[in-house]
Amino acid sequence: MLNTEYRLSGERFSHPLFESAPALWQAVLPSLRRKIFSRHAQVVVHGDAAASLWLVSSGWLKLTRQTPDGKESVVGLCTAGDVFGEAALFSHANYPYTAEVVGDEAELIAVPAATIRSLIQKEPQLSARIMELLNERTSQAQLKLEHMNTMSAAQRLGCFLLRLCHLQVGGAKTLQIPVEKHVLAAYLGMKPETLSRSQQQLRPLGIQITGHTIEIAQVEKLRDFVCGSCSESGSCDAEAD
Amino acid sequence: MLNTEYRLSGERFSHPLFESAPALWQAVLPSLRRKIFSRHAQVVVHGDAAASLWLVSSGWLKLTRQTPDGKESVVGLCTAGDVFGEAALFSHANYPYTAEVVGDEAELIAVPAATIRSLIQKEPQLSARIMELLNERTSQAQLKLEHMNTMSAAQRLGCFLLRLCHLQVGGAKTLQIPVEKHVLAAYLGMKPETLSRSQQQLRPLGIQITGHTIEIAQVEKLRDFVCGSCSESGSCDAEAD
Repeated sequence: MLNTEYRLSGERFSHPLFESAPALWQAVLPSLRRKIFSRHAQVVVHGDAAASLWLVSSGWLKLTRQTPDGKESVVGLCTAGDVFGEAALFSHANYPYTAEVVGDEAELIAVPAATIRSLIQKEPQLSARIMELLNERTSQAQLKLEHMNTMSAAQRLGCFLLRLCHLQVGGAKTLQIPVEKHVLAAYLGMKPETLSRSQQQLRPLGIQITGHTIEIAQVEKLRDFVCGSCSESGSCDAEAD
Repeated sequence: MLNTEYRLSGERFSHPLFESAPALWQAVLPSLRRKIFSRHAQVVVHGDAAASLWLVSSGWLKLTRQTPDGKESVVGLCTAGDVFGEAALFSHANYPYTAEVVGDEAELIAVPAATIRSLIQKEPQLSARIMELLNERTSQAQLKLEHMNTMSAAQRLGCFLLRLCHLQVGGAKTLQIPVEKHVLAAYLGMKPETLSRSQQQLRPLGIQITGHTIEIAQVEKLRDFVCGSCSESGSCDAEAD
């Protein structure tokens, strides 16, 4: 499952978590490992001791949990720039989900729990950044909850696409989302057939979905369709170009 | 709206946020103000500069946001032991919701943003506690999202009641929830008529709802009904006695 593991070379890569603190990145670098996982690899398993914080360099992962009565719940979809495994920040904590690679492979950076915890003790700047990260995460989850009540399924799909557009460097508007339809539907809180209908509803707005490729002709048009029903309107990352 | 404001006297009160750090509580005490707000008072307003972190001593508040197309979204319900206004932890941040007193009155403690931010810089123990708080908040929001897909409306109402049972000192199982039905319904992500139906569905489990008073005959029975559909089952606070 784990194909390769090697030390980081230094200058080649950083991560949004350390973006404002290059000195900290240099300090943490020797403890980090870059790992490449293949499709379906389980990077962490729900209930295991949280040994690392994970930074995603490329690829896609789904974060899932099982209910006792046998349903799978998709609590997250992660791609380049995302972080998961925050449980590693806390002593004696376990991962609250299983993280599995979807798509061909994923490149991750593991920050050992001991490294990040000792850094937090010494570096208020990193603590502050991590608090921001945790707070953004809460805001995102609360906003998704809001959208379950205030938005249509097509608008929720549109919001998800707008966020991905924003992540893209250079503003290109062709997205690759190698996530199976039933997984994406579960993540968005809808049935697969509702997702299909939502995709059709977005077509008149110039959104073409072919397999895992999504082309968005006019982001502005999608934004008009989505953001009027969101209380974050005006202060949301996904609205910026 | 604000009836009274006074300094804290010291020993009379603490808060879960500072529970493991009595020395820190003593240090922060001189900067704190206890404030009593009457029904419908807006303690903070969405978009205002986040000047304080708020600790709830008693009473109930709803946290709401407005969408541009005129819907109200209830993003939180707070009562004794809860914290809101975490935006105050971050510089130049605004409150992401309006907090309004529901029920007769609420007693709150305001921790000035400058106080909490300077404490975080100096006290890794407090940073760690706040990170835990933010992480719990994310987990709660993600769990609520999961429940939207895996639980019935009656189970979601049951889960909300179980959490309140757990907050109660001494394990008494009579709850007072002075929250209007349409607000509670919005918070739980359902229509008011669905909330009414859900209340009826809980009756055979020994749950009597009369106005704002809820009596729960056997918590164990409610737990059996709710927790089998939750991926947190086995590690949830609300399951403990």
